[in-house]
Amino acid sequence: MIRAGIIGATGYAGNELVRILLGHKDVEIGWVSSRSYTGQDYAGIYQNFYQIVDLPCRGEELSALAEEVDVIFTATPQGYLASLVSEEILSKVKIVDLSADFRIKDAGRYEEWYGIEHKTPQFLGEAVYGLCEVNREKIKEARLIANPGCYPTCSVLSIAPLLKKGIIDPASIIIDAKSGTSGAGRGAKTDNLFCEVNESVKAYGVAVHRHTPEIEDQLGYIAGKPVMLNFTPHLIPMNRGILVTAYASVARETSDEEIRAAYEECYDNEQFVRVLKDGICPQTRWVEGSNYVDVNVKLDKRTGRVIMMGALDNLVKGAAGQAVQNMNLLFGLSEAEGLRQPPMFP
Amino acid sequence: MIRAGIIGATGYAGNELVRILLGHKDVEIGWVSSRSYTGQDYAGIYQNFYQIVDLPCRGEELSALAEEVDVIFTATPQGYLASLVSEEILSKVKIVDLSADFRIKDAGRYEEWYGIEHKTPQFLGEAVYGLCEVNREKIKEARLIANPGCYPTCSVLSIAPLLKKGIIDPASIIIDAKSGTSGAGRGAKTDNLFCEVNESVKAYGVAVHRHTPEIEDQLGYIAGKPVMLNFTPHLIPMNRGILVTAYASVARETSDEEIRAAYEECYDNEQFVRVLKDGICPQTRWVEGSNYVDVNVKLDKRTGRVIMMGALDNLVKGAAGQAVQNMNLLFGLSEAEGLRQPPMFP
Amino acid sequence: MIRAGIIGATGYAGNELVRILLGHKDVEIGWVSSRSYTGQDYAGIYQNFYQIVDLPCRGEELSALAEEVDVIFTATPQGYLASLVSEEILSKVKIVDLSADFRIKDAGRYEEWYGIEHKTPQFLGEAVYGLCEVNREKIKEARLIANPGCYPTCSVLSIAPLLKKGIIDPASIIIDAKSGTSGAGRGAKTDNLFCEVNESVKAYGVAVHRHTPEIEDQLGYIAGKPVMLNFTPHLIPMNRGILVTAYASVARETSDEEIRAAYEECYDNEQFVRVLKDGICPQTRWVEGSNYVDVNVKLDKRTGRVIMMGALDNLVKGAAGQAVQNMNLLFGLSEAEGLRQPPMFP
Amino acid sequence: MIRAGIIGATGYAGNELVRILLGHKDVEIGWVSSRSYTGQDYAGIYQNFYQIVDLPCRGEELSALAEEVDVIFTATPQGYLASLVSEEILSKVKIVDLSADFRIKDAGRYEEWYGIEHKTPQFLGEAVYGLCEVNREKIKEARLIANPGCYPTCSVLSIAPLLKKGIIDPASIIIDAKSGTSGAGRGAKTDNLFCEVNESVKAYGVAVHRHTPEIEDQLGYIAGKPVMLNFTPHLIPMNRGILVTAYASVARETSDEEIRAAYEECYDNEQFVRVLKDGICPQTRWVEGSNYVDVNVKLDKRTGRVIMMGALDNLVKGAAGQAVQNMNLLFGLSEAEGLRQPPMFP
Repeated sequence: MIRAGIIGATGYAGNELVRILLGHKDVEIGWVSSRSYTGQDYAGIYQNFYQIVDLPCRGEELSALAEEVDVIFTATPQGYLASLVSEEILSKVKIVDLSADFRIKDAGRYEEWYGIEHKTPQFLGEAVYGLCEVNREKIKEARLIANPGCYPTCSVLSIAPLLKKGIIDPASIIIDAKSGTSGAGRGAKTDNLFCEVNESVKAYGVAVHRHTPEIEDQLGYIAGKPVMLNFTPHLIPMNRGILVTAYASVARETSDEEIRAAYEECYDNEQFVRVLKDGICPQTRWVEGSNYVDVNVKLDKRTGRVIMMGALDNLVKGAAGQAVQNMNLLFGLSEAEGLRQPPMFP
Repeated sequence: MIRAGIIGATGYAGNELVRILLGHKDVEIGWVSSRSYTGQDYAGIYQNFYQIVDLPCRGEELSALAEEVDVIFTATPQGYLASLVSEEILSKVKIVDLSADFRIKDAGRYEEWYGIEHKTPQFLGEAVYGLCEVNREKIKEARLIANPGCYPTCSVLSIAPLLKKGIIDPASIIIDAKSGTSGAGRGAKTDNLFCEVNESVKAYGVAVHRHTPEIEDQLGYIAGKPVMLNFTPHLIPMNRGILVTAYASVARETSDEEIRAAYEECYDNEQFVRVLKDGICPQTRWVEGSNYVDVNVKLDKRTGRVIMMGALDNLVKGAAGQAVQNMNLLFGLSEAEGLRQPPMFP
Repeated sequence: MIRAGIIGATGYAGNELVRILLGHKDVEIGWVSSRSYTGQDYAGIYQNFYQIVDLPCRGEELSALAEEVDVIFTATPQGYLASLVSEEILSKVKIVDLSADFRIKDAGRYEEWYGIEHKTPQFLGEAVYGLCEVNREKIKEARLIANPGCYPTCSVLSIAPLLKKGIIDPASIIIDAKSGTSGAGRGAKTDNLFCEVNESVKAYGVAVHRHTPEIEDQLGYIAGKPVMLNFTPHLIPMNRGILVTAYASVARETSDEEIRAAYEECYDNEQFVRVLKDGICPQTRWVEGSNYVDVNVKLDKRTGRVIMMGALDNLVKGAAGQAVQNMNLLFGLSEAEGLRQPPMFP
Repeated sequence: MIRAGIIGATGYAGNELVRILLGHKDVEIGWVSSRSYTGQDYAGIYQNFYQIVDLPCRGEELSALAEEVDVIFTATPQGYLASLVSEEILSKVKIVDLSADFRIKDAGRYEEWYGIEHKTPQFLGEAVYGLCEVNREKIKEARLIANPGCYPTCSVLSIAPLLKKGIIDPASIIIDAKSGTSGAGRGAKTDNLFCEVNESVKAYGVAVHRHTPEIEDQLGYIAGKPVMLNFTPHLIPMNRGILVTAYASVARETSDEEIRAAYEECYDNEQFVRVLKDGICPQTRWVEGSNYVDVNVKLDKRTGRVIMMGALDNLVKGAAGQAVQNMNLLFGLSEAEGLRQPPMFP
């Protein structure tokens, strides 16, 4: 039995981690911790776990907690893990970090976009970007996983097949993304009140959203050269789900068949990425509660562009589910263990 | 391996049955059938099952289908099963009926409230009302289960403890219930369009809703005498969930402690009924996606009434989940098999 | 031109007051004030008024503000107005108070339910409860209006006709109410975040909600004797709207015709109360954005109870609209001035 | 008093026309007509107008109806008006057509995108595209107005200022649009049921949506040369509102100041187009229920692209409000008559 601990367990991603781990046959949750609710009963905060989870919220003392478990999930604010991680800790415990601290290899670039000094750049080289479909083998050997952001996961998986094949021009990529409100976290902010979000849609973080460099880096590795793109996230009045609609110009003559083949080649052996049938657009409702990403693509011959689409559940494949997928790889388990729940509808 | 078939698989309850049975270690789905979509690919209708379920929708020929499976779930319109069930069929296959056909023991009463002639009243005596917490032992021996309605499940479980103890006056019961829109089914009706339901709340079926006699019958069995009550359902702009707020006058002097003890006595050994802590009101969000029913009660000494509250997911404990719970009992499996998923939030 | 000021203008009711007054031909808004946003541009907080309203938020100095306008609307927390109002202020300006400070005539009862000392009980006698359909003549002569609560407005108007006629037993009244989330205010609380409210329904304030004594008092005046009842509010995932479903036992033999006649007699001359046709249930969507209250009733002969239903927009007839209706009466204007917008759907 | 008739009055745009015209001081509604509800009481279908509108739904006999009013609004399916309009009718009555029949000047292009033969191409030349901010003077002289589509209104107004100034490359335009569900109409389709739309987001009509040629034509007139672009609409779980996020590459060196100046020059004298302050993104909630369009723009110097954003209420500025704005121009009234309601929030 693998013992797991969760720091930041009272955020939405933390809640989802607990839900998924409860259904994982090889894991038991050793402890949960929370800065805001230290000392309180976890199931009193998240009543879905009433009579199911019997754990108090502990404080966020990483070193102490590291003694007690085999893997720690950090669902913490930016900068938390980077300020505390050490060789000693990593020698005792594997860490799957759901924050952005170790996603961007260049500390300067991290600091520029996040506005925080990176305290432990020495671990940036070692950390593995936990997009399983791309970095599977490296993940298996890692100690520290940078679990990808929700938007980057959806964006990269939607765009990668055509970029890898050189079918699209990397300089032409535009990503227009839509996210449910759980992505904004559980902080008590006026902007996230029901009456402010309901019956509205807006763009935010236009041209400055922090997931931009993460997406650019990952697509850049695939393209084999730096990628610069536009990424615009939107807030949607729903709880869960991310939809990415990405645009790019074709770099050379191509066909529907070639494009479709590129996706199939990429994902035919991936159990969590579903290439939808021709003409079927991804919808977030078909992946809710599951670790699936649905993708599809449309070539617009009129304009010479492709429209690449992807949908996932931001709390599962976009956060907790992918974190567990990473954990499975880290510990040599079946990659899908604990993640086989089909999507729930409606 | 138990082989299961689902008639009416393209309704919301059918979809949920498929989802739950996919996670059940002792069951495989032999076939699904649907009047409206006969011949079509099931996963083409419900894309959540894309690449997960590979079954066509078959027609609704009960006799033929009965040859191929061990248990049939009928998530069909009222009157379907009652018009087709026979001794021959029941000798071959167990049936869990999610319609109302066999819930009301008195055929005349059924016909009065449902406006349909009951074609096979000879099976009314044999059919067992599948409220597991109440009829567990009888269910184990049955061939034909009348799976309870969503509102009756929530209402009966919320009220039973005090009625059983004689603490409330059966003549004073008023049930005000609120349901998510999946309870209205998947039929293409103007009234159920997004823009008609969203940003609105209404009562419907006032004083004539068909779940009234079902609730009255079940509470009558508990009270040991006929019960007549008011039941008012309301449509809520959400997908899933039922909340029952029930009122009754106390029949004799009582106390908070006695009332709480009545609930605990009833449900302490029930794994799917959670008596919430004192002062915590049930909320549908805390049970979504799960087979749990959360209940609680408040004694208002000022008015001499109790307010009894219950929350469940209408598609799980109110339909498909309870159907699987019944199936588990029918086949001697662990009652919770396939139903251990914790609620999903948000 | 009547000059109006609004204290607490940055709450949802304040926003709605501004919207309504902008369409009122006899009123100009002299100032708006807000404790939290003092000094900020009002249209910067509520962008709906961008390029429409050009006012800064002033502080909440009641005495100073009273010099500048003819009428003040106080959309303030409980206790604010009661702690500041004085003979001097009332000699200069009329006040329509949207808080509960002057709704309950008995200061002790106010203090018991609100847990706040009432600082100016000497004005309780003078204040008029601003339910126009009930107290129209008194309102015309008043200086200080206690604008009714949202739930009480809907409850009292739904129940009054039968109570007045002695058709129902006052001791048997149970009110089950459902409210959109704007009723919870704009405070940044976790419980009111989108993801906490969406896809859920719950009761709250069970047996202790502060609108209970207000409803009891008003129904008591109509009944001619004290009324004690149960009132249970519920939070619904929608922005606006209140639906009341009220139950009572008939006190004597009656008929559908007599019951209907009671409603028509009460409301035939009321332009903002619509008695729906027989069999049509009120729905909040049909009154959204308007000052209408839709009511209807159903006699359940089986149980000897009536189900009384009412729907209104909590921010209009339940707050700002009724406040303007009161202002119109105070200043001798047409009662409907500024309030003739039909409901907006969808 | 101008007498108005509405054909297709039982759709959502028809309902909104009635709402707006009820508040218009110079108009009375002569009749409403509806194919589906002929003979029924209009206020029985749309209960928001109960006791406000007292009109039956008449049939759709355009010629007969034309005798009785001064202006007809046709909120009808594609092809209806084009199959019936005639010189005789236009000699008697002005027509504001909310369908697409006369929006595209080239009948062949209409037929290609709409798949319907255009029966009266002889009126295409005369018809004026009713985007008031662009074609104001021509509208004043017209008999037949092609009221713009919801997406085109929002798209064109968002993009026009930079295109007009030659700041952006017309070949690089990509429009990603998001719409509330009322845009899908009131037809009883499974895809538009509450449970199908709620908690989901999807693209639809990718690369083939019928508003594409309309947007291209209008932007082409502004650019002075043909424009070909990508337009992708998305369905959002909300009732009303369209948000456009449009991308284009800058065609030459430019600056934040120049870009902002382009918008201000275009819209400073437009009362229904609000250029938001620098850094403020349009949100549909701030325009709901009003005829406003909120626009803003962001220059991303990193990528050399601009992100142009616009928000409107699809039923007001995107349909009925703009139709009334056109009617005002047609009859020499103040352009804003009946349209001065500020946005309603929340």
